[in-house]
Amino acid sequence: MSNPWRDDFPILKQRVNDERLAYLDNAATSQKPQAVIDTVTHFYEHDNANVHRGVHTLAERSTSRYEEARRKVQQFIHAQRSDEIIFTKGCTDSLNLVTSTYGNQVIHAGDEIVITIMEHHSNLIPWQQLAKQKGAKLKYIDIDENGQLKMDQAARLITDRTKIVAVTHISNVLGTVNPIQQLAAIAHQHHAVIVVDGAQAVAHLPVNVQELGADFYAFSGHKMLSPTGIGVLYGRHNLLAKMTPYQYGGEMIAEVHQQESTWAEPPFRFEAGTQNIAGAIGLGAAIDYLNQVGMDKIQHHEQEMVKDLLPRIVKMPGVTVYGPHDADKHTGVIAFNIDGIHPHDVATALDMDGVAVRAGHHCAQPLMERLGVPATVRASLAFYNDQQDIDQLLAAIQDTKEFFKHGTR
Amino acid sequence: MSNPWRDDFPILKQRVNDERLAYLDNAATSQKPQAVIDTVTHFYEHDNANVHRGVHTLAERSTSRYEEARRKVQQFIHAQRSDEIIFTKGCTDSLNLVTSTYGNQVIHAGDEIVITIMEHHSNLIPWQQLAKQKGAKLKYIDIDENGQLKMDQAARLITDRTKIVAVTHISNVLGTVNPIQQLAAIAHQHHAVIVVDGAQAVAHLPVNVQELGADFYAFSGHKMLSPTGIGVLYGRHNLLAKMTPYQYGGEMIAEVHQQESTWAEPPFRFEAGTQNIAGAIGLGAAIDYLNQVGMDKIQHHEQEMVKDLLPRIVKMPGVTVYGPHDADKHTGVIAFNIDGIHPHDVATALDMDGVAVRAGHHCAQPLMERLGVPATVRASLAFYNDQQDIDQLLAAIQDTKEFFKHGTR
Repeated sequence: MSNPWRDDFPILKQRVNDERLAYLDNAATSQKPQAVIDTVTHFYEHDNANVHRGVHTLAERSTSRYEEARRKVQQFIHAQRSDEIIFTKGCTDSLNLVTSTYGNQVIHAGDEIVITIMEHHSNLIPWQQLAKQKGAKLKYIDIDENGQLKMDQAARLITDRTKIVAVTHISNVLGTVNPIQQLAAIAHQHHAVIVVDGAQAVAHLPVNVQELGADFYAFSGHKMLSPTGIGVLYGRHNLLAKMTPYQYGGEMIAEVHQQESTWAEPPFRFEAGTQNIAGAIGLGAAIDYLNQVGMDKIQHHEQEMVKDLLPRIVKMPGVTVYGPHDADKHTGVIAFNIDGIHPHDVATALDMDGVAVRAGHHCAQPLMERLGVPATVRASLAFYNDQQDIDQLLAAIQDTKEFFKHGTR
Repeated sequence: MSNPWRDDFPILKQRVNDERLAYLDNAATSQKPQAVIDTVTHFYEHDNANVHRGVHTLAERSTSRYEEARRKVQQFIHAQRSDEIIFTKGCTDSLNLVTSTYGNQVIHAGDEIVITIMEHHSNLIPWQQLAKQKGAKLKYIDIDENGQLKMDQAARLITDRTKIVAVTHISNVLGTVNPIQQLAAIAHQHHAVIVVDGAQAVAHLPVNVQELGADFYAFSGHKMLSPTGIGVLYGRHNLLAKMTPYQYGGEMIAEVHQQESTWAEPPFRFEAGTQNIAGAIGLGAAIDYLNQVGMDKIQHHEQEMVKDLLPRIVKMPGVTVYGPHDADKHTGVIAFNIDGIHPHDVATALDMDGVAVRAGHHCAQPLMERLGVPATVRASLAFYNDQQDIDQLLAAIQDTKEFFKHGTR
């Protein structure tokens, strides 16, 4: 499971605490290949200008590259039209856009919103606060003992009172892939829309929003090899066309008078002010890179690593792994705890061995409460990880257990 | 008026349409010095990780550089505390933050919001829509024939019914600097707060939010040498502390339960999800660069250029210059029209001579209506412009006039 891609990532060439860097914090943010870094640099050194507003050469170059990035995103997630792609600051911004426009328009007192107990706060608090404000009801689909959604419960919870179903594509803690197609079918049966949080999915498996049946699909660039500060909201055109604006400012208007304004068509209606132009162009370069590697190949390589890692970590004495223990049902996000050692101490100890993992509630406090733990350690894979990263992680866990048992390492 | 700084900007070394590039579209976006580009590259190649959430080495480096950037912003605008600095996507995002939190909390039916006729849409539409939604009144301070605010009218319009005064520090069309201190004093007399749009100011003169008396001060990074997709909202601590959150998601919470959540302290309460980390660090590098040049020196150099350019363009036959004709009252944003030629045609013609300017309504339609023109051409200076840029602009305007008169150039 060596791979030809690791060398494309300059940051991975460094040593950390005198050890080889095993970066296993990909669910928090991904690293950037040279091709993406170079694209951003080239943009600032040759083409930088504001978009859509200028007729001079740099402005035309900048605009054409920005809109080219939009078409790359469209093709990458197989949207029907490029004006269904809205650039945002990130996945959180995308989800707040949906709740404060579409959500605010369709949710009334007595309506119901159905989410899942495994949602990240960004696909949970916006709905929770919208429900409170409107007098609507927020209902949770629970998980079974394997960390998978209880689909029979989902079928009961989603009714004609449901206006919105919001669900993550892949859990950022349990590593489970949710059956979006099935959930979309149930939602649509009841004339509800489905909002999918794709933050943990887009860099790990091929995404086709039309096949999934997603009405909205949100994700961040920084978790898929792109610069920070760029995200995407996909929305079905017929929904976007009826939505009120998100933020107000330049470029989202048709006409502005002293007491009245009218709005531009989507996607511009939702892109007020100067966007993260270099970020969008960087996202386009990341998509080029991912396409070159191939999303099928990425999914396969990550799955091979899970098949190696998961059974080995599951059978370590004193280690509890959350989510399914069956590698076929598990993506590369692996949350665990070591008996008697605080997750933060584990993460600090692993860092001493060059292994970067995360510890905490992973912005999923209701899930932590459901699992009965305040926090976990989380190792999360990307396609540029390899066998050595896995072996280094497992050895470092072993080291950590021994250190905390015997006080030496 | 040559300067040692132009060479620091790699993009300015290219030729456009076989001519030397005279970039005079700085009010739309600024170019980036090598030091800023290199800082962003270095971050992605060495330190990239998500902030605040990790204990591993990269996460600690990334967090410490992100928070260091916040302190640089604090010092740059002379805020009292670093937790008064909120990172946003840009100035538009910052202003939408104020309207949808503070504005939404304090504005009720019958209240009044006072803005000016020269506001950019981003400091106009958010207040207009808030006023409509709340049944409040939106009032406009007009300009005199020199494009300066009618301060006697301001003193009459701002009353005890006024809850918010929102005003731009420097007009993005007229080039006038507004008397913020005076307006703040009037606002505070009536217990109103003043929100200042600093987008066109921060890269052009020293800003001290405490001396100005600004309660909120908003600006973008991309107009001050920084990457796209990063902005700042300064807010007085006692105001921020009482404000509801802006967006909901990770990192802005204290505790999340299924039906209830509580919020983190400022500034984190207002920074939901992963921020533009590299953008903030790039903004820090831009501030370092601006400090090295010196904001006083920047203001002086730009003023010297205005003293040369303004009288020369004002006396060109057939050219109308908007805003004050007195160089002492005018910053480096110069809007004009040429008789009988559409501004877009002027901008296209100037581009043929390597001169990048903007044409349009500059996201200030109510001001255009007030000036009685649908659009203008706009040349806007930065400290890295020089005598040659000015001469090239004036020669290109002369060329354009002759071309449209005689059909040759």
